[in-house]
This record gives sequence, C-alpha cells and structure tokens, in this order.
Amino acid sequence: MRICRFNEGRLGLVEQDKVYDVSAVLASLPALKWPVAPGDLLIERLPSLREAISTAKKNAKVYELADVSLLSPVATPSKIIAAPLNYKLHVDESAADAQIHNNVHNPGYEGFASPVAKFGVFLKNATSLVGASQGVVINFPGRRNDHEVELAVVIGKQCKNVKAEDAKSVIAGYCIGLDMTVRGTEDRSYRKSADTYSVLGPYLVTEDEIPNPGELAFSIHVNGAVRQNANTRDLITGVEELIAVASHVYTLYPGDVIMTGTPEGVASIQSGDLMTARMEQIGEMAVHIR
Amino acid sequence: MRICRFNEGRLGLVEQDKVYDVSAVLASLPALKWPVAPGDLLIERLPSLREAISTAKKNAKVYELADVSLLSPVATPSKIIAAPLNYKLHVDESAADAQIHNNVHNPGYEGFASPVAKFGVFLKNATSLVGASQGVVINFPGRRNDHEVELAVVIGKQCKNVKAEDAKSVIAGYCIGLDMTVRGTEDRSYRKSADTYSVLGPYLVTEDEIPNPGELAFSIHVNGAVRQNANTRDLITGVEELIAVASHVYTLYPGDVIMTGTPEGVASIQSGDLMTARMEQIGEMAVHIR
Repeated sequence: MRICRFNEGRLGLVEQDKVYDVSAVLASLPALKWPVAPGDLLIERLPSLREAISTAKKNAKVYELADVSLLSPVATPSKIIAAPLNYKLHVDESAADAQIHNNVHNPGYEGFASPVAKFGVFLKNATSLVGASQGVVINFPGRRNDHEVELAVVIGKQCKNVKAEDAKSVIAGYCIGLDMTVRGTEDRSYRKSADTYSVLGPYLVTEDEIPNPGELAFSIHVNGAVRQNANTRDLITGVEELIAVASHVYTLYPGDVIMTGTPEGVASIQSGDLMTARMEQIGEMAVHIR
Repeated sequence: MRICRFNEGRLGLVEQDKVYDVSAVLASLPALKWPVAPGDLLIERLPSLREAISTAKKNAKVYELADVSLLSPVATPSKIIAAPLNYKLHVDESAADAQIHNNVHNPGYEGFASPVAKFGVFLKNATSLVGASQGVVINFPGRRNDHEVELAVVIGKQCKNVKAEDAKSVIAGYCIGLDMTVRGTEDRSYRKSADTYSVLGPYLVTEDEIPNPGELAFSIHVNGAVRQNANTRDLITGVEELIAVASHVYTLYPGDVIMTGTPEGVASIQSGDLMTARMEQIGEMAVHIR
C-alpha cells in the first residue's frame, strides 16, 4: 500500500499514477489531550486502518498523482535519525574534499568495524521535515548547501533495543529521503537541520511491498543532470543493523524516520534548482530549491 | 511564578516549599486532532493561564515540595538544543582529557570568535527528557557516563531568526538542566540522547522572576561531594545570543529547550549515585542514577 498526504492535509491512497482521497478514515483517529504521547498517530494506526482505506477508495475522489501537492507522508515524527558516512565512496569523497571535512569531520574509521560503529547515528530536527511539494529553502545563502539522497525507513512501533534479526517487524515502510546539508565546521545536527532540510516522499510504501530494502537502485538529478546514482546494496551498515544501533540509544516511536546515509556524488544546489530523486520500488519526487 | 508537573501528571504551582495542585486549569486546554502542531500547548498558553492558576490555588490541595514526584516541567518539547563547549575551563578540560575528546572532538576554535561560532549548537533527543524524580538510567554500562549541569532556557513562542536584543521576549522561563553524556567517538546527538539523558527541573521559573540569567551561581554534587561549581556569568556565548544562533537554524516552538552548556568538573556517575543540582534563583533537585 502506498500512502500520501497531499494538498491541505488530505490522506491519499496511491495506485499507479492516481491518488484516491481516503481522508474519510481520519475521522476514526481519536481526539488527543495535552500532553500528547510521542509518535505519529496515523502511522501507529496504519495497520488497523488498511481495510478502512480500501473501503474508502470505492467512493473516493480521484486525482492524478502529478497534479497533487505532496506533503511529508509522516506528519509528526518524534525524531529523525540519520546515518553518517554509510557508503564507501562517500567516505572517500568526504576524506578528499576539504569543503566536506573542514578539518573537523575526519571520516577515517581505522580500528572500528564501520563508520557507524565509530560515529554512531545522529539526529536531524524533526520540525525541519517537509514533503516534495514544499521545496527546500536555502537557510545559509553564500555557503555550500548540498543534496544528499538516501533510503528512508519509517518506524511503525514503539521499540527499544531491537535486535537486527527482529528489525523488519518494527518497520512501517519506506520513502525517499533528502538529507539537505550545509558544509562547515558545525555539528551534523546543526548543519542538516534547518527548516526544510529534511525532505520525505513522495509517499510511504508499506514494508510488505519491499521485501529487500538492501537492493534498491536510486538516484538524484539536478536540473536534469545526474548527480548521485547508487544502490542500497552498497550500504556499509544495512537497514536492520541501523535500527538495532538507533534503538540501542533512543526509544523509537511510530513515525520516527531513519535516513540510512547517502552515496557518493553529493554536490551543491542553488536557489531555482530542481532536484529529481528516484528510487526503485518507490517512485520519484521533484523538489524545488526556493 | 514557579510551575511544576508532578506525580501522575498533575500541574503544580510552587511557592516556597509548598506545591498547590492547580490541575483544574488543564481542563481549559483544547482537545487536539492529528496532526498535532509542534510545541508544548501548556507552555504556549501559560501567559494566558496565570490568572486561572492563581484562582485555582485558593481551593488547591497542598503538598510539601519534598513529598511530590517531580516530572519534567515541559511535557512535549519539539526539540532540545544544547551548546557545546560554552565555558572556557570546560574547553580546557576537554582538550586535556583524551576520554572527553577521543581524538575526534577537538575543542580548539582558533580563528573563530567562540566555540559556538565554530561548532554551532546541537540537538538532543526530545524523547530523552525526564524530570528529577524519574532519575537517569545508564544506557551504556561499562563506558564513562558523565553529569553535565547547566542553565536551561524554555522557549515560550514560535519564532525564527530572533535577534539577540529581542531574545528575552521569546523566553518562557528557566530550569536546571542535566545534559547526561557518554564519552566516546560518536556524534553529540548520539552520546547525549539516550532515554533519560536529558533531565529538566525541578520546575519552571518564569522569565519575569530572573531578570539576569547571566549571573546565576550553580553547582552539582554527587553523593554529597561537589563536582561542578560555577556561574553563568562565565558563559562564552550568553543566553540571548544562543537564542539568536539556534533560531537562525531551527524554528523554535513553545516548550523547546536550550541547554546553555556546562562548566568545568564533568565527571562520571555510577548506578546508585545521587546527583544534587542547585541554581541560584531557581532551587535544587535530587536525581538518582538507576
């Protein structure tokens, strides 16, 4: 099942190039009182709403996917987690490019099993999240702001200390993620967390549709020219192990996002650019730089 | 005004050593629907609830402050921001102690006006937050886990790009913050973000009660022995400038927390320890290591 949020907060079921407005099912979500528990209520309830969504499709207004304004498929994640340096060739380009390492972010990991074993995972600001239609607003004009395309995993259940072999059971689904980044000496959680610097889309593809997230070709083009072109088979630390690492530190809640890391080819974008990100078994999204 | 959350989520007005249960005012908070807007609704509404809180005090059940279980005075921050290396003597101890820098976190900032100018601010996991009574659960046994006591600022209004000279107007109040930290090579947003690694308390002291947050003596004792003992006058980057720096990157929402940085004397804690943190014009809180 492919679920989107679109236009003024409508809920959509995506099938091929059509979007069925199934917002009627949202009426079943209970009212909440302060203090609201962490996590995204829709993502938490999604498994139990699948039948209602299929029923709602029958009388749904239908849109062309190309005509709707896509919002982030997760509305209220409690956190966005990301993996640094998780493709070998991106480690190499980070070591070679002083604008990336800035003599602060040395990507070497001698003596450790992987970059994630040395550097852990990191946090992006949960309120930096936007959908494809909202675009990215450059927060640091005059500095180098880069695209980083990656596979994003959306958590479906509250969990802590998940073992890698059990990790599939806590996944709600997958999206394409853009981990927008300003280069500089600051911490990752500063440089990658300005408003709009986390893009999630085009929609959520539920876990059952992607049996092997470790074999997905993906790419990003800027103004039609290819910039990054890779495959998740080259992830150093794979999806299930990343869930184990992240959940060893943080309790994960429904709707939490794990961006799995970007491959080689990161490069700068400018106001007016159009990024087009594609991923096998998911789809594509076009994102403007504003 | 001093506001606490206590026991099973009650709202308290703190006066001297008494807590007045003013939970009746919570009934005026509106029901919420998914998707819930970022921020803490109580903190947002606090200015308009002050009169109702004073009224509710008249018929309130009264507790001894020492007898209640204190929860975090902010229930649902959208984010917790923190400043690294913001006292000169802590910069020096970080440079001198290989267990702190681990050959990854070099605190030198030659060529920059301040550590914050070089390293920015960073994020802690918003769901790591606990109150004084809940205690800290060591997430990384066998590694060095440290206390870091600091002044915490709670944001009262949604804002972006606040100038330092206007920053006072977006502050809801102040708390003592504990930025619990495991030492190692990982990013700050990993090492400082395990569940319970952010302690806020004992209660919120509203902004009007502390005209000068840049002149507050504070300390932390572990099992009765002093470990950190400092004054916010030695902050390298002060409260107002930190709000300017943070709001330049992130939109801030009511309830967002800024931990302003820790002074020298960080040291390890063990299961069974009792931390006692005190701050002038705020009060004190006792926090167990579980």
